[in-house]
Amino acid sequence: MTEKSSKSKKQGKKPRLYSYRIRQSPYYDATQRYGCKSYTPYNNMYLPLVYKDLLSDYWSLKNDVTLWDVGCERQVEITGPDAFKFLQQLTPRNLTKFKIGQCYYVPLTNAHGGIVNDPVALRLEKNKFWLSVADREILLWAKGLAAGLKMQVSIQEPDVSPLAVQGPKSFDLMADLLGDWVRTLKYFWFKETELNGIPFILARTGWSKQGGYELFLQDGQYGDQLWEIIMGAGKPYNIQPGTPCWIERIESGLLNYWEDVTDSTNPYEVGMGRFVDLDQDVDFVGKEALKKINAEGIKRKLVGLEIHTEPLTQTAEFWVVECNHQPVGMITSAVYSPDLKKNIAYAMVSIECSDLGTDLKVDLGEVKADATVVPLPFVDNRDKYLAGL
Amino acid sequence: MTEKSSKSKKQGKKPRLYSYRIRQSPYYDATQRYGCKSYTPYNNMYLPLVYKDLLSDYWSLKNDVTLWDVGCERQVEITGPDAFKFLQQLTPRNLTKFKIGQCYYVPLTNAHGGIVNDPVALRLEKNKFWLSVADREILLWAKGLAAGLKMQVSIQEPDVSPLAVQGPKSFDLMADLLGDWVRTLKYFWFKETELNGIPFILARTGWSKQGGYELFLQDGQYGDQLWEIIMGAGKPYNIQPGTPCWIERIESGLLNYWEDVTDSTNPYEVGMGRFVDLDQDVDFVGKEALKKINAEGIKRKLVGLEIHTEPLTQTAEFWVVECNHQPVGMITSAVYSPDLKKNIAYAMVSIECSDLGTDLKVDLGEVKADATVVPLPFVDNRDKYLAGL
Repeated sequence: MTEKSSKSKKQGKKPRLYSYRIRQSPYYDATQRYGCKSYTPYNNMYLPLVYKDLLSDYWSLKNDVTLWDVGCERQVEITGPDAFKFLQQLTPRNLTKFKIGQCYYVPLTNAHGGIVNDPVALRLEKNKFWLSVADREILLWAKGLAAGLKMQVSIQEPDVSPLAVQGPKSFDLMADLLGDWVRTLKYFWFKETELNGIPFILARTGWSKQGGYELFLQDGQYGDQLWEIIMGAGKPYNIQPGTPCWIERIESGLLNYWEDVTDSTNPYEVGMGRFVDLDQDVDFVGKEALKKINAEGIKRKLVGLEIHTEPLTQTAEFWVVECNHQPVGMITSAVYSPDLKKNIAYAMVSIECSDLGTDLKVDLGEVKADATVVPLPFVDNRDKYLAGL
Repeated sequence: MTEKSSKSKKQGKKPRLYSYRIRQSPYYDATQRYGCKSYTPYNNMYLPLVYKDLLSDYWSLKNDVTLWDVGCERQVEITGPDAFKFLQQLTPRNLTKFKIGQCYYVPLTNAHGGIVNDPVALRLEKNKFWLSVADREILLWAKGLAAGLKMQVSIQEPDVSPLAVQGPKSFDLMADLLGDWVRTLKYFWFKETELNGIPFILARTGWSKQGGYELFLQDGQYGDQLWEIIMGAGKPYNIQPGTPCWIERIESGLLNYWEDVTDSTNPYEVGMGRFVDLDQDVDFVGKEALKKINAEGIKRKLVGLEIHTEPLTQTAEFWVVECNHQPVGMITSAVYSPDLKKNIAYAMVSIECSDLGTDLKVDLGEVKADATVVPLPFVDNRDKYLAGL
């Protein structure tokens, strides 16, 4: 009997597919039941984009708590005797203080100092790490580098699927489920735990600044069950299914890979200079290039802009930014913030035009709107994401 | 005037996007005008899937000539003093006879001997190559390896977008446009040429065995124009817009990456052993692993199957294959061939069950169908793709 039921569970794990090349996460069925209206391919998986509508999803995240299928944040697992040494090769960040149980934001650079990805790394053991990657096959980047360096590491994608619980009521919700310890789990730290026997890692991370957690489910067959447990416990907190929120992430100063950051931007240009340690002994990929860039100084910079015009509608255009009638850069992300009642944006502009208060123009096609360089983040949510600490 | 018009051309090149992360090829507008009904993301671009319907598209390809937007076959350009040396690291194939002007099918292997991708390489100069890759970010794999090996190579994605002209009438069509020399361009060779000043490389390649070419357009702004020139000239030959054809490619013995081939299959398992040269001096990635696999012998093998049941409808399920009531493998691709009037499939099965003529069963869910191991390819199209040579 036991053998049979374990077999049928295994069969239940088999991914059902619309295409061999786009996979469903363990939460996919749940997202369908809960009315997800559209998805985007992300790391060759379906990432939910909208449930009710963008605004409802936004207010649920800011006022209550939302549950996100972010199974597409694939994990790149690095193990083996050289795992730590290898991770040091991948990132300009100094890792000497990176503790077991901790999460580190680790921009990865290529030989030219460009950012290949900006994952969060989890240190599970002395020589066991997960990189929770943005949209790009970092598995191949890491495997290629390891093959070239001939290091003793094993690099693979484990059966791990993140689920995010985000929003100010996430602390109460998760405390109900797991106990009060979750309130004082430090920001960017994690703990291995379980719910009804479902194994996962609870990390105080997530791609919003509204507070919350990511649950790194360690056995895909329990995806639906985990989703329902959290949805059930979340009812008193008005939980809603949600998605990474375009508006909130810009308000909060979060950057999106492929938009604000690509491999043709370097860490100094996008405010990640503090993660670059050129003085360490480690010869990480891109060190020589970053030394040169640092010595010469950057020529452009990602800044926050307020665009003084009618509320923007959703967009995906790289609008040209002008100063004194000359093009000086481009918008990388822009949105109308219902909370701030302003259009806010990131723009990559010439360093000469990057000072706070600089007046610029944004060519929106039909009009050229006035814009001003403002401090980042647009909204300081420290009280929210550090709640209880 | 000249400056102005060249500027507006440059602006015309700016990609229009529905998402920052999924790009449109230079032929995208044309595919829309010509009625493409659905696309699939492939290398983060839109790959057309269906125009009229699968069967019409199939017969157009087999009887006449079809034009495919395969701009998603991204090129990985390798240049620099170590370019040739580096390419030898990437593939187990012996490259010593690889000539300028030639195309080489080069399976790329990882440290475990698994196939990371199976691109066609073009040798443009002594130290300049393009890899025309299947769906996977081989740019990252190659850059990672190069960073690790510290070789003097430059690796990038050039502004090159393949367009395929496939089908038995492609020879007449392209001869009308470019001259009779195209008829005798050797199979898997290429030549740099142009049409109305539009620069491209004409290669006698393509992902069908119906005969034809791939045009590697070298300036994206001319995509629409090139498309229309070919469509116009193709009218007498009943040209239709088309796509890589699921049915034809199985009939012809072509394998699809992520289905029949993945990084957990090795070259010996999928009939690519002839591309592995273990005796060469080069220490390519995966050599040690492949030596071991070769010495021990493979344990499973990709075979051709005929499945004796009702015509299959389109599917993307990995059906289990059984022998004597035991599971011995799985179907990787299957389709009903209207031409052969048979269900044909690839299956990865235990080596013991891989002999020609072996009787197997395929678990289709509702029924277990009888199946027989048959020779590959299912259809020998040598007279078609070698026409004129």
